[in-house]
Amino acid sequence: MSMPWFVSERPKPEMSTRPISVGCLIYAQMDQIDFTGPFEILSRMPDTAVTVVGKELGPIQDVQGLQLTPDVSIAEVGTFDVLVVPGGYGQQPLMHDEEVLGLIRKQVQAERLLFSVCTGALLCGAAGVLAGRQATTHWSARHLLPHYGAALVDARVVVDGNIISAAGVTAGLDAALALVSLLRGEAAAQEIQLAIEYAPNPIFDSGTPEKAPAEVLQSFQRRYESIGTTREAEAIRYAEKEADPESHQQRKALIS
Amino acid sequence: MSMPWFVSERPKPEMSTRPISVGCLIYAQMDQIDFTGPFEILSRMPDTAVTVVGKELGPIQDVQGLQLTPDVSIAEVGTFDVLVVPGGYGQQPLMHDEEVLGLIRKQVQAERLLFSVCTGALLCGAAGVLAGRQATTHWSARHLLPHYGAALVDARVVVDGNIISAAGVTAGLDAALALVSLLRGEAAAQEIQLAIEYAPNPIFDSGTPEKAPAEVLQSFQRRYESIGTTREAEAIRYAEKEADPESHQQRKALIS
Repeated sequence: MSMPWFVSERPKPEMSTRPISVGCLIYAQMDQIDFTGPFEILSRMPDTAVTVVGKELGPIQDVQGLQLTPDVSIAEVGTFDVLVVPGGYGQQPLMHDEEVLGLIRKQVQAERLLFSVCTGALLCGAAGVLAGRQATTHWSARHLLPHYGAALVDARVVVDGNIISAAGVTAGLDAALALVSLLRGEAAAQEIQLAIEYAPNPIFDSGTPEKAPAEVLQSFQRRYESIGTTREAEAIRYAEKEADPESHQQRKALIS
Repeated sequence: MSMPWFVSERPKPEMSTRPISVGCLIYAQMDQIDFTGPFEILSRMPDTAVTVVGKELGPIQDVQGLQLTPDVSIAEVGTFDVLVVPGGYGQQPLMHDEEVLGLIRKQVQAERLLFSVCTGALLCGAAGVLAGRQATTHWSARHLLPHYGAALVDARVVVDGNIISAAGVTAGLDAALALVSLLRGEAAAQEIQLAIEYAPNPIFDSGTPEKAPAEVLQSFQRRYESIGTTREAEAIRYAEKEADPESHQQRKALIS
């Protein structure tokens, strides 16, 4: 099993007694628990206000049809102490969305915390903020991180300075708990874990490609082949553009 | 650690290749992940349609302010193959809500599957359907189950015939995975587990009162004392009413 979490040499997020603002991006065709998992935990962090941010006001549907409604639109917000960027199928259509990428860049430029879950890391990559950083993402997309200039770390949760990344989907729960422990201390995180009875005990151990039965892995790979191919082509395009000195300078100007 | 799941002597839910309908009840002040956890897994079950059911149409807010919108109102629905009943603070105001209790009773009368998460089990208890059944609920409410005629089982997931109950909050993920394995087979459940990278690895082991540090448990107990007292008083009222032969006959007539 990979490490529960990896904390890099960069200064990690600091304990604080100030009020904390958390913004959670939501968008059509996302994977809802990438967001509702961290929401469950971060909304219980002491003295914390969570705001749900949509591209537009009005409800969206997640990839399985769950209706979620933002509190505000991107146009109305600046930065947050923590910005949560979930993943899922709907991440792909946003890879060139300047409004979404701009929200992510602003957050990192302001040296505030960026928290990606699952393929939300690819959106962060497309925003250019993962260059030179250590990160993780859904296991099926990990090999794509280097195209965005990031170094893959084999951990369920990666904390690299102000960028926290969670592996696939349900790893957002573990990452959120880790983040609470950094920002508000271990006891605060442990009390939330107790409140939500987070003593996971699945009847199978099939949550990673190393542990899943071979035929289960093959079935998954057939089902996800199309989105996998699309994501890979996108990552290669990004890397090729970055290899061009002029494009690289343009992107660098955007994020610094 | 308690067992991952307990399956009683009653005939357990059967494998099926028929389409499956799942209804998920949502209500104000509920705990959203009691619902979004099972939704994540059950919506990925092969050939399954999930419908989100509210008391009324129109959005509700969970206990931390997350906006959730039902697809239909209770008045519009009958029974489902599976009915998910989540818990949370908002369960208490519904303990005498005949519309909600009626939805739960209809499900059990039709011998279809009832799936409670966390204190959703107390709603099932109030509906009268847990009498003589084995069940579990959030650890802070387990001692209340006998007041509803149920036998408490120390397991994260309890399958007693057509009634499946999950322990607190995040146990809904484990219970949903177990239910998929029963209805669609192990490989289907394992593939969902792989897709959502459900290989949980929290940095602490503080999710049960036995494991949490003493001061964390005490802090939780202070914070939840009020709702705990209210739930206990409600359970005792129920038991006293059931002890009255006339009330008992009335309730029995409702559920048979």
